[in-house]
Amino acid sequence: MNRTDLFHLIQQKKSFLCVGLDSDLNKIPKHLLGAEDPVFEFNKKIIDATLPFAVAYKPNLAFYESRGIKGMVSLEKTMNYLEKFSSEIFTIADAKRGDIGNTSTQYAVSVFDKAASGFSFDAITVAPYMGEDSVKPFLAFPGKWAIVLALTSNKGSDDFQLFADENETRLFERVLERTSKWGTPDNIMFVVGATKAEMLEGIRKIVPDHFLLVPGVGAQGGDMNAVAKYGLNDHCGLLVNASRSILFASDGTDFTEKAAREALSMQKEMEAILLKNNLI
Amino acid sequence: MNRTDLFHLIQQKKSFLCVGLDSDLNKIPKHLLGAEDPVFEFNKKIIDATLPFAVAYKPNLAFYESRGIKGMVSLEKTMNYLEKFSSEIFTIADAKRGDIGNTSTQYAVSVFDKAASGFSFDAITVAPYMGEDSVKPFLAFPGKWAIVLALTSNKGSDDFQLFADENETRLFERVLERTSKWGTPDNIMFVVGATKAEMLEGIRKIVPDHFLLVPGVGAQGGDMNAVAKYGLNDHCGLLVNASRSILFASDGTDFTEKAAREALSMQKEMEAILLKNNLI
Repeated sequence: MNRTDLFHLIQQKKSFLCVGLDSDLNKIPKHLLGAEDPVFEFNKKIIDATLPFAVAYKPNLAFYESRGIKGMVSLEKTMNYLEKFSSEIFTIADAKRGDIGNTSTQYAVSVFDKAASGFSFDAITVAPYMGEDSVKPFLAFPGKWAIVLALTSNKGSDDFQLFADENETRLFERVLERTSKWGTPDNIMFVVGATKAEMLEGIRKIVPDHFLLVPGVGAQGGDMNAVAKYGLNDHCGLLVNASRSILFASDGTDFTEKAAREALSMQKEMEAILLKNNLI
Repeated sequence: MNRTDLFHLIQQKKSFLCVGLDSDLNKIPKHLLGAEDPVFEFNKKIIDATLPFAVAYKPNLAFYESRGIKGMVSLEKTMNYLEKFSSEIFTIADAKRGDIGNTSTQYAVSVFDKAASGFSFDAITVAPYMGEDSVKPFLAFPGKWAIVLALTSNKGSDDFQLFADENETRLFERVLERTSKWGTPDNIMFVVGATKAEMLEGIRKIVPDHFLLVPGVGAQGGDMNAVAKYGLNDHCGLLVNASRSILFASDGTDFTEKAAREALSMQKEMEAILLKNNLI
């Protein structure tokens, strides 16, 4: 899927919502715990409930790996289920990988090469610390994307991402400048946290054309309108992620209705933003 | 295992060798491919051949994840096999993880909490880009270690790790300064590539007491004596990793003999270094 395909998907669904599948076994509704694979059952129901309102799904691999092989089986079933809807959604492995070249290639295979690993995500999140040869292997798969961490939504993002050189260029800006040259707006996106929405204006000067994956709206407190104000471009250019606020909107038997209501509410907000900006 | 225990292990084995289990199915000897689980068979034989000469084993998770669930089964069998020797070895999940706090906790569970995930490594490699809350969850497990990327051995390490502020403090130095305050030399190590051995002198001024995990000796061209000259401390303070030079010393039926010979040769070099520096 390239940038234009993704934009068409956004126009069709009138939404740039990404649902983060941070499916914590300890937080899913208790009545599902008797199922053979409670996490898969939960994901399936969340997907069914939110599919009309979302353009992307983003399983957070940590929540599957923490359950070992059983967790990876839940993830594989989830991805096979999502594959049925591949013409109308974009899938992201939230994995924050990055290593020397030959190892990054193996990580790319683990999420992109279904014949080898059983997984065929559209994209993976990548940590840039190790530089060019740690990012480029993810760009060698046609139609697939690397989503590189730039400015994240957590408190610790200040520790290193704001580290600045003598010209007051900060590390996240250096990451945007360099990394954007290693690929194109058709195979690289950047993670920019919604909690730093006011910084999107400067970021858009460095990467006007790239999609940005924006976590932190919802449970982490980011503001969608501020994100849209500074972050939108002529291809929309935003995927706004919500995880906990949708997944755990209720822990009762009504969790699918509550999740759908929350996703619908975000989609409506997005539709208004897209309309106002003449993007639909 | 704490720093003193690890030093005692090094003294006992007269070695600070870590064997990296980057067990690529495409590179292991062809005569093993008929086995039920060729990668596990390979690892088992490599472990048996190198156990007298190594203090640590470091499976590179990418090479297991790239084979999907089958790969994770090979890794689980390998770790269960290594557990038999837990009194004489240290185990490292080479995973380069790091995410916001609640996600890093899940990654920590995935490698440290055997009841939940099936895995109980002693340590995990961690990428520092996301800062304090991305590293600290790995330090909440008593006796376990986070091995934080500082200055890596690959070419791309120049892209961001050498980014410097107005006082000429480089990012990797900032990482050493800040991260070392989040834990102790008993639960934090740092990755420093052997290809940057001359920079170990400056690094030791910032972190005199911490263990350093040093990849890049062997296939990547680093020099063990230079690493020892600048990197040793009073607890040895070094784990030198070799992967491909040991694993793939031969692709024939003599691969165990060749791997053992290569590991022995490195152990002898290390023994001489430890003796010369009055550490054994």
